[in-house]
Amino acid sequence: MSQPAHQFIEQNRERFLEELKEFIRIPSISTLPENQGDIQRAARFVGERLTGAGMENVEVIPTGSHPLVYADWLHAPGKPTVLCYGHYDVQPPDPVEEWVSPPFEPTLRDGNLYARGAVDDKGQLYAHIKAVEALRAVNGSLPVNLKFLIEGEEEVGGASISKYVPQNPEKLKADVALVSDTALYAEGMPTLCIGLRGLVYMEIEATGPSRDLHSGLYGGAAPNPIFGLVELLSKAKNSRGVIQIPGIYDDVEPPAPAELESWTSLPFNEKEFLKKEVGASKLTGEPGRSVLERVWARPTLEVHGIAGGFTGAGAKTVIPAKATAKVSIRLVPRQDPEKVIAAVREFVRKKTPKGIRTEVRVLSAAPGVLVNPDHPAVHVAAKVFGEVFGRPTVFIRSGGSIPIVGEFAKHLGIPTVLMGFGLPDDGLHSPNEKFRLENFYLGIKTVSSFLEEYGQNR
Amino acid sequence: MSQPAHQFIEQNRERFLEELKEFIRIPSISTLPENQGDIQRAARFVGERLTGAGMENVEVIPTGSHPLVYADWLHAPGKPTVLCYGHYDVQPPDPVEEWVSPPFEPTLRDGNLYARGAVDDKGQLYAHIKAVEALRAVNGSLPVNLKFLIEGEEEVGGASISKYVPQNPEKLKADVALVSDTALYAEGMPTLCIGLRGLVYMEIEATGPSRDLHSGLYGGAAPNPIFGLVELLSKAKNSRGVIQIPGIYDDVEPPAPAELESWTSLPFNEKEFLKKEVGASKLTGEPGRSVLERVWARPTLEVHGIAGGFTGAGAKTVIPAKATAKVSIRLVPRQDPEKVIAAVREFVRKKTPKGIRTEVRVLSAAPGVLVNPDHPAVHVAAKVFGEVFGRPTVFIRSGGSIPIVGEFAKHLGIPTVLMGFGLPDDGLHSPNEKFRLENFYLGIKTVSSFLEEYGQNR
Repeated sequence: MSQPAHQFIEQNRERFLEELKEFIRIPSISTLPENQGDIQRAARFVGERLTGAGMENVEVIPTGSHPLVYADWLHAPGKPTVLCYGHYDVQPPDPVEEWVSPPFEPTLRDGNLYARGAVDDKGQLYAHIKAVEALRAVNGSLPVNLKFLIEGEEEVGGASISKYVPQNPEKLKADVALVSDTALYAEGMPTLCIGLRGLVYMEIEATGPSRDLHSGLYGGAAPNPIFGLVELLSKAKNSRGVIQIPGIYDDVEPPAPAELESWTSLPFNEKEFLKKEVGASKLTGEPGRSVLERVWARPTLEVHGIAGGFTGAGAKTVIPAKATAKVSIRLVPRQDPEKVIAAVREFVRKKTPKGIRTEVRVLSAAPGVLVNPDHPAVHVAAKVFGEVFGRPTVFIRSGGSIPIVGEFAKHLGIPTVLMGFGLPDDGLHSPNEKFRLENFYLGIKTVSSFLEEYGQNR
Repeated sequence: MSQPAHQFIEQNRERFLEELKEFIRIPSISTLPENQGDIQRAARFVGERLTGAGMENVEVIPTGSHPLVYADWLHAPGKPTVLCYGHYDVQPPDPVEEWVSPPFEPTLRDGNLYARGAVDDKGQLYAHIKAVEALRAVNGSLPVNLKFLIEGEEEVGGASISKYVPQNPEKLKADVALVSDTALYAEGMPTLCIGLRGLVYMEIEATGPSRDLHSGLYGGAAPNPIFGLVELLSKAKNSRGVIQIPGIYDDVEPPAPAELESWTSLPFNEKEFLKKEVGASKLTGEPGRSVLERVWARPTLEVHGIAGGFTGAGAKTVIPAKATAKVSIRLVPRQDPEKVIAAVREFVRKKTPKGIRTEVRVLSAAPGVLVNPDHPAVHVAAKVFGEVFGRPTVFIRSGGSIPIVGEFAKHLGIPTVLMGFGLPDDGLHSPNEKFRLENFYLGIKTVSSFLEEYGQNR
């Protein structure tokens, strides 16, 4: 552990916080047209701070949409190269009236910094930059070769970066990527996420009559596309949560017994999860598997939205001409999105009820990712994370998807260390988003130690 | 047949048409706040024309919403009393750009009068008034006692009249009601509708998590209310169109063999019905029953609308907190709406999937209606209808619902003669609504003859 770097971080707590606040005050909401100027300001801010930390070749790269920011420092011959990723854009703050303090005026309360973007992802991205600054300040150089690739479209689909990465494999070449956009499993518990589910997101449209029909005059003879969708979807998953689409489970690899075993020691309380997080009367899902296995390591089918016919107040007796459902399948590592899409198309083709036509439109497809826990970078990350936090690092997975991790794997051939410093209750995308301030500093220390030890590792 | 009355009608063709045009030019759209003045004008117009035709005690009755118009003529002691019903309100003309001539400027083309309200129901209501005028003109009196009750809310649910009828059974006392708001089965074919389906209209709301959840983090463990609804609805009707709710078919009486037999002689062409009217690839519904039986004489379950979760453009990976479906069951005569509602509630209660809560809200409930074809008024109607049109009257049913018919039966204890002069392709509620002009005159003649012969009948 680099005591000098950590001391530097301690000595600069106030300044680092003020700088982070300045970053957060830029309302770089990626989805709103009126914030496009703020998006540009935030990109420039990131570029300037990377320069200030000693990074070189800093570029604010125009795209068809929001700029990417690139920087590198490549003066450690023989040392590995780390590619740091983060995003400077944020979600809209709505509903604004639910915020205790204004969303873009970062405010400290009870050791937490409250603001939109505090933890997702400005605070965590800034921790990377400050770790670099600290290492440069105390050593005059960096222990590894370093590249930064920061985007401004993470909250709106990340289209520009997913074009940029495959077009620039040489420029982005690295041994490992480092992403801080996840959370500790629980307060004070150093956590590495080594598995993410993939996602195939589809729209299924069912059409029946050529126009909306009067249900009195045609009910009993005309096919109803809402019922068509209902019938189709009810056959796609049974009431126990098991997907009924043939072939879906073919390539699903169960987690290793040791990994499954390690999850049982996590402080997971099913009753609290049901009551405080889900808020329903019961949990559902495949029988005989734990909640964590179901959510982290099993494919699942969900309907995210369904729309058709008359949905206003009151009554209208129509048999609608069409109905649409937004459907996704979460994938676990080794499942091929294309194979899953083909299975869905075949299922829909076979099971579409009489009189109904269906169309499956694929909106996105990304595979699941599993990081090899024996990769040297993961070893080092686990070690320093545990040292900085003072207790052993746990390995978890996430049921969600971070598409950039799959793209780094696919186009650069590198694993990603998912080393996040948020907390499960930080309220990402919600009012009163926060970042535990101490985790900001612990994050800077952990990242600086990671870079130092990973540099010594080879 | 009253040759004098028919001659009077022939001699006044031009004037009757000009008066009808004046009525149609009032854009009495019941659903739009900006047309409230027109609603009042249309109600006054009806009242004035009833007075002009010789009706007495004309009242424009204020309600909480749109006025009712009442009138009577009760100087035929010993003769039966006929209650004429119609409505002066119309549907909005949208989409206006699809009209060939302006919706509220009645225009003659190819023997049809094109305008919003031409057939639904201004033209048919006006035929009643002109029949009265003709009879008074040639006889100096009327052959029966007559009452008119005209509403201005038919297109928006008819709330005021359904309050007024049960509150005024003495005032409205009659032997039979006469309604001209239906259509001939085919051009030139005199048609009496003797059966209507009833309707129970419900909203089923399913709730699961206490808030929208991230499908990556909770998918596989959190119950999804869209899937809950899908599962429930898929169990309510099988893929062959048979309702699976226990007890639903208990009180369903099959049509008499003679009635079923008579339907086979109607000029119904299943291929044309599928192609021109439904526009789907296939028809659906209970096997072993004809289309007309399925649509006219069988209960059916439809979903009119479904909504839940994210339905905008693109992708959002949410497990929604709730989902709602608008569901109706069409009832055939003898089915008790309350019994059907209880069966639905019980079914929903039993079949609601684990983790989901459901609520059934009943928006409306009306029984089916069957008019006894042996009632003297129906006999007379069939006879004169056939004489005026020059071919035998056919008896049909309709799969739709006309709630006022059930209310006259329930609160006044009288049957309704459904004697309509529209055509199936008149485009009710659509752009370019029309009324075949000759059917306007034939309607006036048929109604005048009906009143005359029904007066002689007792």
